[in-house]
Amino acid sequence: MRKELLEDIGEKELINRLKKFMPKNQASDDCALIITKKEKLLINNDTLVENVHFNDVTISPQDIGWKAVVSNISDLLSSGSKKTIGITISLILPAKTEWFWVEELYKGIDKALKKYGGIILGGDCSRGNQKTISITALGIQGELELKRNACSPGEIILTTGIHGLSKLGFMIKNKNNFENDISLSKRLIKQSMEHFTRPKIYPHFLANLLKTRPNKKITRIGCTDSSDGLFQAVQDLAIASNCKAIINYEKIPKDKDWPKGDKWDEYYFFGGEDYKLVFSLPKKWAREFSKLDNNVTEIGFFIEGEPSIEFKDKKKNKLLKNTPFKHF
Amino acid sequence: MRKELLEDIGEKELINRLKKFMPKNQASDDCALIITKKEKLLINNDTLVENVHFNDVTISPQDIGWKAVVSNISDLLSSGSKKTIGITISLILPAKTEWFWVEELYKGIDKALKKYGGIILGGDCSRGNQKTISITALGIQGELELKRNACSPGEIILTTGIHGLSKLGFMIKNKNNFENDISLSKRLIKQSMEHFTRPKIYPHFLANLLKTRPNKKITRIGCTDSSDGLFQAVQDLAIASNCKAIINYEKIPKDKDWPKGDKWDEYYFFGGEDYKLVFSLPKKWAREFSKLDNNVTEIGFFIEGEPSIEFKDKKKNKLLKNTPFKHF
Repeated sequence: MRKELLEDIGEKELINRLKKFMPKNQASDDCALIITKKEKLLINNDTLVENVHFNDVTISPQDIGWKAVVSNISDLLSSGSKKTIGITISLILPAKTEWFWVEELYKGIDKALKKYGGIILGGDCSRGNQKTISITALGIQGELELKRNACSPGEIILTTGIHGLSKLGFMIKNKNNFENDISLSKRLIKQSMEHFTRPKIYPHFLANLLKTRPNKKITRIGCTDSSDGLFQAVQDLAIASNCKAIINYEKIPKDKDWPKGDKWDEYYFFGGEDYKLVFSLPKKWAREFSKLDNNVTEIGFFIEGEPSIEFKDKKKNKLLKNTPFKHF
Repeated sequence: MRKELLEDIGEKELINRLKKFMPKNQASDDCALIITKKEKLLINNDTLVENVHFNDVTISPQDIGWKAVVSNISDLLSSGSKKTIGITISLILPAKTEWFWVEELYKGIDKALKKYGGIILGGDCSRGNQKTISITALGIQGELELKRNACSPGEIILTTGIHGLSKLGFMIKNKNNFENDISLSKRLIKQSMEHFTRPKIYPHFLANLLKTRPNKKITRIGCTDSSDGLFQAVQDLAIASNCKAIINYEKIPKDKDWPKGDKWDEYYFFGGEDYKLVFSLPKKWAREFSKLDNNVTEIGFFIEGEPSIEFKDKKKNKLLKNTPFKHF
């Protein structure tokens, strides 16, 4: 069967096909429309570029669609969103792109929205050399304001899960050569692939924060997500809040089959695409929250000092000489 | 002096520099925040891709920034926006891009926002092969709902200005060879360049519609903008509203120095990037509106029939065999 390319079906037909993924009342005009009450809206934008964020060898278009939505909703959650309203999708695609690729991308987008809430509000599609998916997501701010700059010295640093798995999944897909003496368990391989292709978010974050809040007067929490890796997340909090993070290496939650060694610590801290929440709470609240959910773990604390990260066990500080992924 | 490239200044410094264009309270977090009342928000997305929508030979980065904002605000206006809240900007740039280019782009964005209202709410920047500017704009819906599908048979078709000038400006910048016997007036050349590099929108559109509304019960108006050319705009209205447009060629407002001939009619109808509003009103309202503002002109009317466009003077119908710009 001949492959159906975008240049074969034409722009008009492409737009019609994409509109089928949208609610009917949204699908006919220049602008998308949402009805608001007296509330605060959160807006986030995240862009995935071919051969920068993904390539057709390591990941399927359906997984790309899923991840594009998840990375946006993760940002909304880390700012305290209680509900995702919807997203607009801006695509750039070469004329030789197969319609199948676009349809699969939208199926992944659709699945993630069905799982985590939100609709497709609108979008556009342009021709270009490099496949690009740019999503703008809108959410409604909940009762707590979650900000990078709201951490305080004395607060406990927590995270909602294990890091590094997505990076490992990527390396496996990429047929990375690991050291000869490393044997990865089947379970770890499966887990890692899942984390890389279909990362999950933690949708009850806000609800669980509110459930364990010891004092209704506290309305601002220091928080971000670990889409660029755990190290980057803690560093962003430290810089925005102007305090020093002390990480307790022993407390970091690792997959039980995660190999030992500096290289594996590097994957863990600098891997990225983890989509866990990294945040700080007063001691009592931190204890209550981690009691409520075993996946939530205390990994360190903030103290006064230069915005930076140190390990409690100073011998581990050599790990921090690495630098996270940068676009430029 | 050595040129300062993005790969020299690094991602962190780039983000810091771009944040200087944002209001201080917006500039520190994962998500942007806006406070809403009980209202309808309009959301629009428009993307400009290098060598598809622009290139560095024909247009300066400052003009690109201006046009990126204008094309979004024009879409908001054509949906009935009474106020632009702000925009998010998603950039894709090669590592070898000069910082100067980015700064100029942002200056153009800033100027257009200062002129037409709205702030920079947030954004992100990724590496990629092709310069791309994707803007998502948010506006507040005013008292009238402006929709492509709200035109009715019997209504007058109007436009807020002269078309084709932007196309001519582009061709002049592109050193297009015109027929030997055409001499363009200096004034027309200047006007066209201005329309191409710094297109203006019609910000009082909604206010003037309300001022001339004969009957408060009418709350829906058929409308779109001519960013893809006058022909495409009328066709979009006809298709969405399921009626036939009859255009009166004699009434089409042209620049007084606009050359005659089929080629020039083609530039006029299919040029694009005009950012005028194209809409339909009941007769009385149409007359009042065009009396209020001389730039607003009646150019035809809708009748019942297959969604299509015809000229009143049937000899002119050969012009319509052309097809507008398509991405695929």
